[in-house]
Amino acid sequence: MSAERFAALWGSLSPIGQAGDGGGYVRLSWTDTDLMCREWFVEEALDRDLEVEIDRNGNMWAWWGEPEGEGAVVTGSHLDSVPHGGAYDGPLGVVSGLLAIDRLRERGVTPARPVAVVVFAEEEGARFGVPCLGSRLLTGAFDPAKALRLRDREGTRLADAIGRAGLDPDRLGPDPDRLARIGAFVELHVEQGRALDHLDAPVGLASAIWPHGRYRFDFTGQGNHAGTTRMADRHDPMLTLAWTVLAADEAARANGAHATVGRVDVAPNATNAIAARASAWLDARAADEDTLRKLVESIHQRAEERARHDGTQVAMAVESLTGEVAFGGAVSRLAAAALDAPVLPTGAGHDAGVLSSHVDTAMLFVRNPTGVSHAPEESASDADCATGVEKLTDLLARLCQ
Amino acid sequence: MSAERFAALWGSLSPIGQAGDGGGYVRLSWTDTDLMCREWFVEEALDRDLEVEIDRNGNMWAWWGEPEGEGAVVTGSHLDSVPHGGAYDGPLGVVSGLLAIDRLRERGVTPARPVAVVVFAEEEGARFGVPCLGSRLLTGAFDPAKALRLRDREGTRLADAIGRAGLDPDRLGPDPDRLARIGAFVELHVEQGRALDHLDAPVGLASAIWPHGRYRFDFTGQGNHAGTTRMADRHDPMLTLAWTVLAADEAARANGAHATVGRVDVAPNATNAIAARASAWLDARAADEDTLRKLVESIHQRAEERARHDGTQVAMAVESLTGEVAFGGAVSRLAAAALDAPVLPTGAGHDAGVLSSHVDTAMLFVRNPTGVSHAPEESASDADCATGVEKLTDLLARLCQ
Repeated sequence: MSAERFAALWGSLSPIGQAGDGGGYVRLSWTDTDLMCREWFVEEALDRDLEVEIDRNGNMWAWWGEPEGEGAVVTGSHLDSVPHGGAYDGPLGVVSGLLAIDRLRERGVTPARPVAVVVFAEEEGARFGVPCLGSRLLTGAFDPAKALRLRDREGTRLADAIGRAGLDPDRLGPDPDRLARIGAFVELHVEQGRALDHLDAPVGLASAIWPHGRYRFDFTGQGNHAGTTRMADRHDPMLTLAWTVLAADEAARANGAHATVGRVDVAPNATNAIAARASAWLDARAADEDTLRKLVESIHQRAEERARHDGTQVAMAVESLTGEVAFGGAVSRLAAAALDAPVLPTGAGHDAGVLSSHVDTAMLFVRNPTGVSHAPEESASDADCATGVEKLTDLLARLCQ
Repeated sequence: MSAERFAALWGSLSPIGQAGDGGGYVRLSWTDTDLMCREWFVEEALDRDLEVEIDRNGNMWAWWGEPEGEGAVVTGSHLDSVPHGGAYDGPLGVVSGLLAIDRLRERGVTPARPVAVVVFAEEEGARFGVPCLGSRLLTGAFDPAKALRLRDREGTRLADAIGRAGLDPDRLGPDPDRLARIGAFVELHVEQGRALDHLDAPVGLASAIWPHGRYRFDFTGQGNHAGTTRMADRHDPMLTLAWTVLAADEAARANGAHATVGRVDVAPNATNAIAARASAWLDARAADEDTLRKLVESIHQRAEERARHDGTQVAMAVESLTGEVAFGGAVSRLAAAALDAPVLPTGAGHDAGVLSSHVDTAMLFVRNPTGVSHAPEESASDADCATGVEKLTDLLARLCQ
């Protein structure tokens, strides 16, 4: 595959959801922008004579061969983005999947089993707060009744958002028959660090996904006038929040883990008012579950100590928790043997991680020279992306024959 | 004045702008709620046969006597609130002004000069960011061209907000003739601390308003993926923000001053993304201008040190700066002699502070047992408010005869 050929299909998706002014992409799931991305996928699939199916959870499947056949070989990723994210996180795996089907046909491969490209819904969790929601619902890892009650920041319920897009909210939930018919899943994804750049390799293979949790800290104090309230009389939850942000960073460095507070919400959020309450969301990941648990305990403990000092209250809630995913099955072993690609772990969650407890799964990464992800600077060269398509094609060819 | 009589007029304004669920009041200037408050004022003024005038800056004046007369005696305050603020901050001075006119008439006072109750627009600066905007425009302390370009958080320009309320944006600006006709201004306000409670006094007199500044800190880093970016590779502006929040608190305590970060804005504000940029608004006040300057310099310096540590950038902008206001003129001296009330300084800015460089001015405070302000817990008893009306009437009677 030439870089130009990759760029041609890539360029047909690129205009959708650009924020303008270098602000990257805003493709939040089930918004008009997301629906345009989904329409793009359906058209590209139909152009390839693939049969398009939308499952009960809003995931889209484009089939080469019989959708009801057994042992299907599936590749794909997602099209939604974080707010002002990069272009590649998600869409690269979808575009590469479509191009890999073109390449399989050009190579004259006759699949012995169905081949499909999948687009999972709400992978980022950027709109409704739960990452990998489409794949989790499919596998039964998330309660559909809970999902329907999720609300975005404007207060729109997921039930209404998917209903508006033509999905039947009553049908949301596990789809074990569909899952059982999948023999192998391969997700190709842009790398979200600089390991491949350091290794001078265009494509890599995932060994594992770190365990990962999202935690909400609610700090409560006493709203008051900023000008007239003596420092000694204050119960300022913003101080406890700030302390916790710094404690998370320090604890992550001390434990060789990752911890981030990237989202906060302050009320009333007025310049001349001491906050009455403030919330911070902690994203924490570590190489093993024991380290992750210790990391979060230590952050929680330091938040509580500071709350006593500030005369505030703190409550922590686990919003999501995902154990370690090791890609060690037959598909990954086959990939390691067949592809000339280095093997590396990742801190990012993916639909591949969700599927891996049900389906034999592998992940490929494409080099990202900036190492930046979830931001406009995320990048990958057309040449590396084309190499990614060829490697994906190699693997799918072995799996489907 | 009986507590019941105060409560009757107070109760006619109370239902407007309640947030519900104990969330206090949301009366942002030029919103529908604010327009309802303004209509309430116009009706109450007309019921009293006062002549109502709306000046070029949207401040409302209710005149007993000739609006064009010289040496007018004016009292009043504002009706707008911070988001989820208390009931008394502002409205108490307006309600008390109307009741003081009732009491002057009942006492048979025949004013030798015009008497007016004024309602200043956008005192809190909670919608467009500039406190005391109505009085600043009147006195020429704020550029009307700049004011018209101010935007609220939804992006609405002040020009459009006031145009929608029937004001001519082209007429905004200084009103020196109006100002020159005012002989004395008295603002009655709920106390925003607990000094009167400690002194066991229902009403106090202001000696001075502390110098006060609002500063915006913009922290810029590198947005990135929270799961995959090594701690060593991060440029996380949230860390610099958190450090600055704590530094402001420490510096204020060390300098016997007040410093607060009550408002922040983070982008993209997503759980699994390291922030690309974050802003914090610092509210700083001190007993003298030299201390205020040192306080802000020390906070700015600590923010810059931490930015170097975090690999981020910080830029500080002064959004507003108000020097010390001493209430030491003839009106305040008369008040001190005539009223049996303790004298105290305050950290809060007021329209009285803005007017004081042009008009002989005094301020009265009414006891607030919780000491809380800018929050729903702000309070004052009907009996203390009624005492406030009587003291205000005493002072106005002396000034207008």
